Amino acid sequence: MDYRPLFSQAASRMKYSPIRKMAKISQEPGVISFAAGAPSADTFPVEAIRRVTDHIFENDAQAALQYGLTLGYSGLIEVVVEVSRRRQIQSVSAGQVAITSGSQQALDLVGQLFVDPGDVVLVELPTYIGALAAFRKHQAELVGVRQDSNGMDLEHLQTTIRDLTRSGRRLKLIYVIPNFQNPSGITLSLEKRKALVHLASRHNLLIIEDDPYGELYFDQNVASQLLPLKAFDQEGVVLYLSTFSKILSPGLRTGWMIAPESIIEQIDIVKQAADLCGSMLDQRIVAECWRSGVIERHLPQIREFYRRRCQVMLSSLEASMPQVVHWKVPAGGLFLWLTLPDFLDSEKLLRVAFDEQKVTFVAGAPFFVNGEGHNTLRLAFSKENEDNIRAGILKLANVFKAHLE
Amino acid sequence: MDYRPLFSQAASRMKYSPIRKMAKISQEPGVISFAAGAPSADTFPVEAIRRVTDHIFENDAQAALQYGLTLGYSGLIEVVVEVSRRRQIQSVSAGQVAITSGSQQALDLVGQLFVDPGDVVLVELPTYIGALAAFRKHQAELVGVRQDSNGMDLEHLQTTIRDLTRSGRRLKLIYVIPNFQNPSGITLSLEKRKALVHLASRHNLLIIEDDPYGELYFDQNVASQLLPLKAFDQEGVVLYLSTFSKILSPGLRTGWMIAPESIIEQIDIVKQAADLCGSMLDQRIVAECWRSGVIERHLPQIREFYRRRCQVMLSSLEASMPQVVHWKVPAGGLFLWLTLPDFLDSEKLLRVAFDEQKVTFVAGAPFFVNGEGHNTLRLAFSKENEDNIRAGILKLANVFKAHLE
Repeated sequence: MDYRPLFSQAASRMKYSPIRKMAKISQEPGVISFAAGAPSADTFPVEAIRRVTDHIFENDAQAALQYGLTLGYSGLIEVVVEVSRRRQIQSVSAGQVAITSGSQQALDLVGQLFVDPGDVVLVELPTYIGALAAFRKHQAELVGVRQDSNGMDLEHLQTTIRDLTRSGRRLKLIYVIPNFQNPSGITLSLEKRKALVHLASRHNLLIIEDDPYGELYFDQNVASQLLPLKAFDQEGVVLYLSTFSKILSPGLRTGWMIAPESIIEQIDIVKQAADLCGSMLDQRIVAECWRSGVIERHLPQIREFYRRRCQVMLSSLEASMPQVVHWKVPAGGLFLWLTLPDFLDSEKLLRVAFDEQKVTFVAGAPFFVNGEGHNTLRLAFSKENEDNIRAGILKLANVFKAHLE
Repeated sequence: MDYRPLFSQAASRMKYSPIRKMAKISQEPGVISFAAGAPSADTFPVEAIRRVTDHIFENDAQAALQYGLTLGYSGLIEVVVEVSRRRQIQSVSAGQVAITSGSQQALDLVGQLFVDPGDVVLVELPTYIGALAAFRKHQAELVGVRQDSNGMDLEHLQTTIRDLTRSGRRLKLIYVIPNFQNPSGITLSLEKRKALVHLASRHNLLIIEDDPYGELYFDQNVASQLLPLKAFDQEGVVLYLSTFSKILSPGLRTGWMIAPESIIEQIDIVKQAADLCGSMLDQRIVAECWRSGVIERHLPQIREFYRRRCQVMLSSLEASMPQVVHWKVPAGGLFLWLTLPDFLDSEKLLRVAFDEQKVTFVAGAPFFVNGEGHNTLRLAFSKENEDNIRAGILKLANVFKAHLE
């Protein structure tokens, strides 16, 4: 049977994620992978999670194994309320929280809730491929806004909004990753955060603030510069997304969304149809890890872990990369973003790097919605140990040099 | 800010599930609930799951806490291949399996993959509300097909297909719950299973076979009558959905889909955008529960548990219900389906039953896509113990009698 005539238009247009594809290939033995942006499994507090889990089976097993509420386990919602307060998002109530299966599900639910085919979603150039996939799933028209060294170019955003509005397009969302952006590593400045909230409010647009990496800063002084856009939000224009994936464990699928209650009520309805509820055991484990202080005690080690790996990768890049290769030093997160001379194609280089050197990364073009970025690439410093980072970057540098001659 | 102009058309049309609403209300203390169709927490093999979980933390913790493949943990996929063989679905390979976050997510992914706005999905009258919600989420046009005592009326199905095709509608899917159907309790006969597969194949339609309850038969002799439609499927027209929710635990969100590889490949892409992957810990727990024989050893007890509760409810109904109230005896599952005289409205009776007697059920109308069913209702015998079932049915009978006078 030929199924193609039966596929929906949205599904027919969707593509296999290049990140997931590289992640699969990168699992082959002997490969040095700078591709997958997963946190390092070495950062998981395994024994603490094990103790917490057994405690749940001792005290709350039947509820942990039963269906639960669509918007999430109340104990975890309380934790999110407290986390929000610590991140200086004021007066969040339980009714403003939805727990999701990672923040990827939150992105999908947002797309479902707001995007009709052809509606415009404004995104950074470059931006997270998983968000693009979620918006494309709902047939959004994705329009890119340039970034400079401190985040989204607000002048470009304004002219883009003006031009699209004049041509009669329906604008709905602005998607932004303010902290150590995936893939660029850029952090949005405080001034721009304020201005962006103001601008969205003025144009009746919602901001989707995606903050998976904010806790992963390398320097305590940076922390004060990471105030969420949601903290400036007086009018309810910001939907704040975050996750426990990078600060505890991504296999326990627990992200969350903070939004006005009337939006959370709609998320409830859409999520019912999507999965009835998330994993009740995962949600209890994460809540109990927070309550018992596991996450907080563990965070400084995670920050130091990635700071160190980033430092090793930066030193290796400086030592071996040809001068025409550029990168910015990120203040946190998991990624370094490289720009090659314009005549090089990172997709082609990736094939060479994998075939000849067994080193992988993610080519940059799929992060751009405007066809740019063929000469860019993303390096994740999260997975490999320091020796492999040094060896892998040296191999990559040799591949690049061979193509510069 | 008024968000309504920003909501998508699909989201604007979706409604809060009446089942979930009643489930929420039913959690109030003192309520006897025949509403929620959740399995009884008394059937969860808590200690066995606890041991299995600790074993996973001992041996495979880092993988259980890390991101995994979108289509699911390979160990659980292997289990599903074996479960399929036992259910006499021949020659299923790992590439034909997708693990989902309960079978609800499978329904949503199927909707995403096949349904464009206005596409027709044929469903039983009545049918599972969660499936209706998933198809509505993708703006399907839902058309009902009558059932008789052995399932879908195939003559009505044929004339419906003919009429819709003649009027130029795009037909895509036939959704069917063959075993102890939710909500009617009806089981599709073997002859009809064969005929339905043949008919779908002839009309180039896909069958979505949803089988959450098949293992919950009350009599071993019934088991041989439950051969899946998928077992008759030579041409790849059947997508088979099932779940571990009813035979192990629903809080561990693990359903699955069996479909031709070219469809599973597309499910992979759509699911990436939906959640990247499901709970890796849940999937490992379920796989290990199967491998270590926990599920198999436990199944006879679960069957006996529900058989007994169903029997108690049937006896109570016979003892107390007025003669004008009708029901069929189901051969398994979790539900009894009641038909009242035409002039009664079960929605109104539900309000009275809850307000005056603190007894809940689910009113029947939302299970019908054609506006019928106002005089029907669903009773779940899964949640309450035998004393509560007796007391609750007596109270309900009194409410009904009061409205018959």
